[in-house]
Amino acid sequence: MSAPTQKPSVVYGRPVGTEGVPNVYAGATVVPWTPPDPGIDNLGISSVDAFAVPGVGEYTVPFDGYVRVVRSDPTSRIWHDAEVYTNLIEMKMVGHCEELGTITVRLNPDCLSTGQIRTPFDPYAGEGPSAKACRMAVGALFEMPKLGLRLVNKEPIILTIDDVRQIPPAGSPGKGQIYRMLPLHDIRRPDDQPIAYLTSLRFTMGGYLTPDELAAI
Amino acid sequence: MSAPTQKPSVVYGRPVGTEGVPNVYAGATVVPWTPPDPGIDNLGISSVDAFAVPGVGEYTVPFDGYVRVVRSDPTSRIWHDAEVYTNLIEMKMVGHCEELGTITVRLNPDCLSTGQIRTPFDPYAGEGPSAKACRMAVGALFEMPKLGLRLVNKEPIILTIDDVRQIPPAGSPGKGQIYRMLPLHDIRRPDDQPIAYLTSLRFTMGGYLTPDELAAI
Repeated sequence: MSAPTQKPSVVYGRPVGTEGVPNVYAGATVVPWTPPDPGIDNLGISSVDAFAVPGVGEYTVPFDGYVRVVRSDPTSRIWHDAEVYTNLIEMKMVGHCEELGTITVRLNPDCLSTGQIRTPFDPYAGEGPSAKACRMAVGALFEMPKLGLRLVNKEPIILTIDDVRQIPPAGSPGKGQIYRMLPLHDIRRPDDQPIAYLTSLRFTMGGYLTPDELAAI
Repeated sequence: MSAPTQKPSVVYGRPVGTEGVPNVYAGATVVPWTPPDPGIDNLGISSVDAFAVPGVGEYTVPFDGYVRVVRSDPTSRIWHDAEVYTNLIEMKMVGHCEELGTITVRLNPDCLSTGQIRTPFDPYAGEGPSAKACRMAVGALFEMPKLGLRLVNKEPIILTIDDVRQIPPAGSPGKGQIYRMLPLHDIRRPDDQPIAYLTSLRFTMGGYLTPDELAAI
């Protein structure tokens, strides 16, 4: 459950420190339209990913697991003005399909996966406070032991959540912004041609987990 | 007009060597539905980019310039089966708007900008040969001397061209796959918060240029 200690060579955005930042677990109160104090959110997550393996086939795989996300101090206490920077410091999601076997998705320790929450430049029209946009650039490692493969993305997977009314956006649906195909490379031969492609990713943020629930995943 | 010599620390896809690969200029013949021999394509390009600067404003800027793209040997001589890997080895685009002044876009030498052309997994239905999909992950450097800024993207800009019937897809319209906002960071303080955002990018690949045309840009 500790964060990776390898220093990443690729940093997709703004680093956020974890030192002295408290973990937030099930039971915490989330106040809508209010920028929260810094924290490390321990949240459930589920997703449905589609993989295309050239010459072999296309597979849709449901995943379940958790993420741990460190949040920065908001840049303002006023919801509309606040920007919050995030780093995905840990992820474990497990899925299964017959052809690919069990797939475990973790963070690629060579990448710092970064994100932010801010008021978009193209906000929804409407009265009252504006919903925010959440985005995260992720470097993942897909372990597929049945195929003897460990695959990584070299372009980040951009995960987005719209209509964010509270931080964290627990319970919100999100999407991987994949245009047609995102190449996945063998971690042992990252400069060779892609082994597979991620062609679609839809996810739902879960709620806060207890430490026991996290440990059980 | 030489390629950058700094070794990039970030490689977005598959590297393609340039040694012994001939330059291709105006006058070259392009055969539709036919994978070509390797080459370095010297092509015109134009684009319209939108920038948002928080607290300041949003600006739409037209750019013109050139790209130099090295293409790999196709993996097959059969159009449908062929994959072609590409690296963007040089780019210069110049744009202007009153508020931001003259903007020059070049490659970020710290990134290897990579791409590929292949038959998509979600092809258009139809008779005859399938059109291919072209994608390129780009690390760019936006120089804005009027503002004293040199901005870089830390997530790649994903440029895509659909309905590719010939290689290179000269004359085709393309799009930057930007979901709402792509952060741009000050190259001197890349771990600080973004200075600006790219919110939209539409481009059109031009045709082959002559060496003189290239030198004049």
